[in-house]
Amino acid sequence: MKNFVLINPFEVPEDMDDDRFLEDWGRAADYMRSRPGFVSSQLHRAVSPNPRFRFVNVAEWESPQYFQAAVRSPEFQAMAAGTPSNYPALYEVVRVL
Amino acid sequence: MKNFVLINPFEVPEDMDDDRFLEDWGRAADYMRSRPGFVSSQLHRAVSPNPRFRFVNVAEWESPQYFQAAVRSPEFQAMAAGTPSNYPALYEVVRVL
Repeated sequence: MKNFVLINPFEVPEDMDDDRFLEDWGRAADYMRSRPGFVSSQLHRAVSPNPRFRFVNVAEWESPQYFQAAVRSPEFQAMAAGTPSNYPALYEVVRVL
Repeated sequence: MKNFVLINPFEVPEDMDDDRFLEDWGRAADYMRSRPGFVSSQLHRAVSPNPRFRFVNVAEWESPQYFQAAVRSPEFQAMAAGTPSNYPALYEVVRVL
């Protein structure tokens, strides 16, 4: 079965250090991992200085419905309240080279 | 050997249709594929309507140096001239769930 890919770029303010972001992200990610439909997740950190998006999460979900249900849960909403600006969307792979 | 991950989100204007973007991207991607250090590439298209980034390229390169050399080449610069706004950066994977 084909999965859907969540790609979520985070605009992390310069004055927030990596450890603080990673701690908050880890809590939210642990919750998502416990939800139905979660497949896997890879968090990426920029190698170059001053990136537009310092962190990008690339995850797989079984369906948009499972992902939306997890995002809309009160537990996740509470954990995501202090998260830096981010732009989550679900994708499908259309070209492979 | 650990590869580096290029993540490049594209802000595609609503009046540009998918086929036009895919044609231009395909030409640039074919060029990149011919350069030293290129490993693989997966182009993602958003499933949901009105996404901030309609397309996101997730590719692997052997090193930042190879990637920068390919990007700076006059051939690539010419092909990328009419591309919608995009935010390429190199990443490493820091968490896997």
